Amino acid sequence: MSDKLRIIPLGGLNEIGKNMTVLEYGKDMIVIDCGLGFPEDDMYGVDLVIPDVTYLVNNQKKLRGFFITHGHEDHIGSLPYVLQAVNAPVHGTPLTNGLIRLKLEEHSLADTVKLVTHQAGEIVKAGCFQVEFIHVNHSIADSVAFCVHTPVGKVILTGDFKIDPTSPEGMADLARLGELGKEGVLALLCDSTNVERHGYTPSESVVTESIDRQFRGCDKRIIITTFASNMYRIQSILNIAKRHGRKVAVTGRSMESILKVAGELGYLEVAKDLVVDISEIKNIAPNHLVIVATGSQGENMSALSRMAFDNHRQVNITALDRVLISASAIPGNEKAIGRIINELYRRGAEVIYDKSEGLHVSGHACQEELKLIHALIKPRFFIPVHGEQRMLRTHEKLALQMGMSPKRVFVGDIGQVFELTAKTCKLTGETVPAGKVFVDGYGVGDVGAVVLRDRKHLAQDGMLVVCVNLSGMDGSVLSGPDIITRGFIYVKDAEDLMEALRYLVNDTLEHCRARRIKDHSVIKNAIRNDLSAYLYKTIKRNPMIIPIVTEL
Amino acid sequence: MSDKLRIIPLGGLNEIGKNMTVLEYGKDMIVIDCGLGFPEDDMYGVDLVIPDVTYLVNNQKKLRGFFITHGHEDHIGSLPYVLQAVNAPVHGTPLTNGLIRLKLEEHSLADTVKLVTHQAGEIVKAGCFQVEFIHVNHSIADSVAFCVHTPVGKVILTGDFKIDPTSPEGMADLARLGELGKEGVLALLCDSTNVERHGYTPSESVVTESIDRQFRGCDKRIIITTFASNMYRIQSILNIAKRHGRKVAVTGRSMESILKVAGELGYLEVAKDLVVDISEIKNIAPNHLVIVATGSQGENMSALSRMAFDNHRQVNITALDRVLISASAIPGNEKAIGRIINELYRRGAEVIYDKSEGLHVSGHACQEELKLIHALIKPRFFIPVHGEQRMLRTHEKLALQMGMSPKRVFVGDIGQVFELTAKTCKLTGETVPAGKVFVDGYGVGDVGAVVLRDRKHLAQDGMLVVCVNLSGMDGSVLSGPDIITRGFIYVKDAEDLMEALRYLVNDTLEHCRARRIKDHSVIKNAIRNDLSAYLYKTIKRNPMIIPIVTEL
Repeated sequence: MSDKLRIIPLGGLNEIGKNMTVLEYGKDMIVIDCGLGFPEDDMYGVDLVIPDVTYLVNNQKKLRGFFITHGHEDHIGSLPYVLQAVNAPVHGTPLTNGLIRLKLEEHSLADTVKLVTHQAGEIVKAGCFQVEFIHVNHSIADSVAFCVHTPVGKVILTGDFKIDPTSPEGMADLARLGELGKEGVLALLCDSTNVERHGYTPSESVVTESIDRQFRGCDKRIIITTFASNMYRIQSILNIAKRHGRKVAVTGRSMESILKVAGELGYLEVAKDLVVDISEIKNIAPNHLVIVATGSQGENMSALSRMAFDNHRQVNITALDRVLISASAIPGNEKAIGRIINELYRRGAEVIYDKSEGLHVSGHACQEELKLIHALIKPRFFIPVHGEQRMLRTHEKLALQMGMSPKRVFVGDIGQVFELTAKTCKLTGETVPAGKVFVDGYGVGDVGAVVLRDRKHLAQDGMLVVCVNLSGMDGSVLSGPDIITRGFIYVKDAEDLMEALRYLVNDTLEHCRARRIKDHSVIKNAIRNDLSAYLYKTIKRNPMIIPIVTEL
Repeated sequence: MSDKLRIIPLGGLNEIGKNMTVLEYGKDMIVIDCGLGFPEDDMYGVDLVIPDVTYLVNNQKKLRGFFITHGHEDHIGSLPYVLQAVNAPVHGTPLTNGLIRLKLEEHSLADTVKLVTHQAGEIVKAGCFQVEFIHVNHSIADSVAFCVHTPVGKVILTGDFKIDPTSPEGMADLARLGELGKEGVLALLCDSTNVERHGYTPSESVVTESIDRQFRGCDKRIIITTFASNMYRIQSILNIAKRHGRKVAVTGRSMESILKVAGELGYLEVAKDLVVDISEIKNIAPNHLVIVATGSQGENMSALSRMAFDNHRQVNITALDRVLISASAIPGNEKAIGRIINELYRRGAEVIYDKSEGLHVSGHACQEELKLIHALIKPRFFIPVHGEQRMLRTHEKLALQMGMSPKRVFVGDIGQVFELTAKTCKLTGETVPAGKVFVDGYGVGDVGAVVLRDRKHLAQDGMLVVCVNLSGMDGSVLSGPDIITRGFIYVKDAEDLMEALRYLVNDTLEHCRARRIKDHSVIKNAIRNDLSAYLYKTIKRNPMIIPIVTEL
């Protein structure tokens, strides 16, 4: 085993979010990215989803460091949790590390973690690995791909990327990727997010032009929402505002804190006197003002959501507002965003959100860009990553269309082990622990399948607590049965039903007593079964029933 | 008031679903459509949403009948509930009534309701109203618009429609709409579903061609899912299957029952020996078979979902399957459909769902079709309907761009009263009861805001029941405190926490006893507050806490 490279994805395959990949060779191990996912609809009450890192904990001695491609949540979000389980240096570019530092501070971990900052182009030694930082384009500045030089060959992990020849940061370093391709690349792990889309992702400069068009001749106040992490977008907005003689106010916590980091690190050029505090906007004429707000995904407590529902302390939406949604919906958020747009309209605002207005472009490569990357890198083996099954399969198809042999393309899953030599790659059949760990409040991993199943049950039809005190002497009812319900029915209008339920429980208790049943678990089951059958028959509902029987 | 026409929408404005509009003049009242809506994400446990029909109940004597534009759920689905509250004849076209009859039979109402069938072109008298049925195109056959001839003028309600010059049913009756426009139309109530989309909705014939393309040279078994109610689509599939020498099997309850109705009424032409029972498919070679399945919206128990999760009795998905998704996602269903596609891929199937494949067209008019309708009908007043606020506002904008005066366009809401004379239209400011009534199991209206709030609370963090028996003599603890949790935490790994909670409750009880507090509601509040504060501080969760204090 010691002469073979092992690649083990712990997140990001067959899912969107919590990207994390382990590379292991002999006594050395590194981890690429450490992201989180957001809960699905059926994960009631869960705040965040992080990867299962049992494998890292069990191999802690080998761990040489974390390498982070960029500063989005699905690539950095689990760090505060994972670093408490296994500590190792974290390597990233300046902006990425700035955002990680913010997170670590929030979790009071800033002093215990070693953050090492690198520029694209640098090569970092980590055990037997050399990790090369390669500049790519994405919707956040300072994104990189990694070429990991391993004893058996080069492995390229693209991270999230697209190819933008007119990016303010300069185009992704295709020259270096091509050079590596010529030297020979053992394996490519490539972003599959947009593989279902034809053509190319348009340049960020298209958005700049579109936003400018919305400012021209506009005599309303302009409110614009976008992803806080998209520094180019924010810079464009600042530039456009200045050009049109408007002041800029920022609202929303994540927007404020990211802007602070980006400003300090020099990622934002803010003209003097351009930005005003949100508390000062009442002194500025609407047509001389731009408000940059969080909430592009319809988030509940975001600035834009508070505005829409007339709940924002400083901003009151009227017919004198033009709202620009400079984002597209992440799948699952369509309805939340729709609700906000409806509310903004209801208050008279003009809302610009149609795709045809060009107010947003994706941060991920479409089919033609992916083909270009495959053609440049010409890997011996290809592992599609960062996508659901349909995207991984479509990416596989694209690789086959590019002429790769089906034997050299591997669609895998998290927890599977890819084993590589200089000439071979295979799925070993071995699996390591991998999956979703739920974060709920301060609890990590204490909410699992059973708790979620109960929450779902409670959400569906609510619950009934049935309380009764029995005599220890003869099993007769000393007090009760009392029935307390929550989330079941509007009780005040259901007195008859409640009365019927109490009768039913009394019947059940008498029946048990007549049969000399004293075992409380048997009595409780009888109450549960009888009530459950009755409720299903009469109102077709299935609330959770909790009998509490006390013997005195 | 008796010489004025009142138009009162009870559903369909500022929402998608449960379309219903009242027209009232003097002693007469008719209702156009009687639809249902599906629950939003936060309506835990709710099965269906129907309109509040208090106004109909209170004006029962005036009610001359229901007139139904077409047989989709959001236009007929509330009939079984509403007809139990107010009975009146229901008027519709043959297929619409066929589907209504199915529903009434399910609710054992078929004998108590008068269903009257009409053809497009007919005019039906109902009190002082004359209701004219006008053929339009939509994604279900036999759809009509209504021109209601009232004492103050003509009111046209388009229902759901598009304009399809190559529809198998013939194009919508633009000639008649134009004629009415020339004679003078008082008010237009027009479908706004697709008003945000540019251009024209493509013809159904485009889909036929696209499906045929997927059959050509295909040596796999073909599985196709679509909306059960789209008869043209099903007919096309039957025709294409026959042309390519394939047998057709149908699976999924709604598909089977709608096909039965459509077949009996002659809306489907089924070649002899073409359709086989799903139980016989094992005797047919894969490349000679098509399976038509429910599940185009990712519904949980649908045929396609069962296939995807390997849970279908007759169909086992393999690499020998090509699955065609001949539908697009209704907003909110994207993730459910995505999950099914992923699972189908995982079993090796080829799945065709990309928009660019042309496997689906919308049933609603886009901007250019809407302009055409406005130009033909030239109404004096315009009320956009069938859409969320953003759509209604966009439709308003479209009308203004067509040259209408802003004073003649009315964006209203459900429950508002539009009052019309031959020359005027205004919102009176009066409102009638309107809103969402929840159906949960057999219960109609017994789940409201309070119950839903509790279900949401329970879903978020679960609950704790705290049980304690106190002595009536001195308030000392006779038994307990016992703490029972559901959906809160994985208790087996949280023994320490549970122990701490019991201590805390004992402290609280002692504190109450020391202060000679005997009022149970005060004791319960103290338990609730102390536990709640402790839990938020230690694990940042807020479960529902239910203290049960019994005095013995």
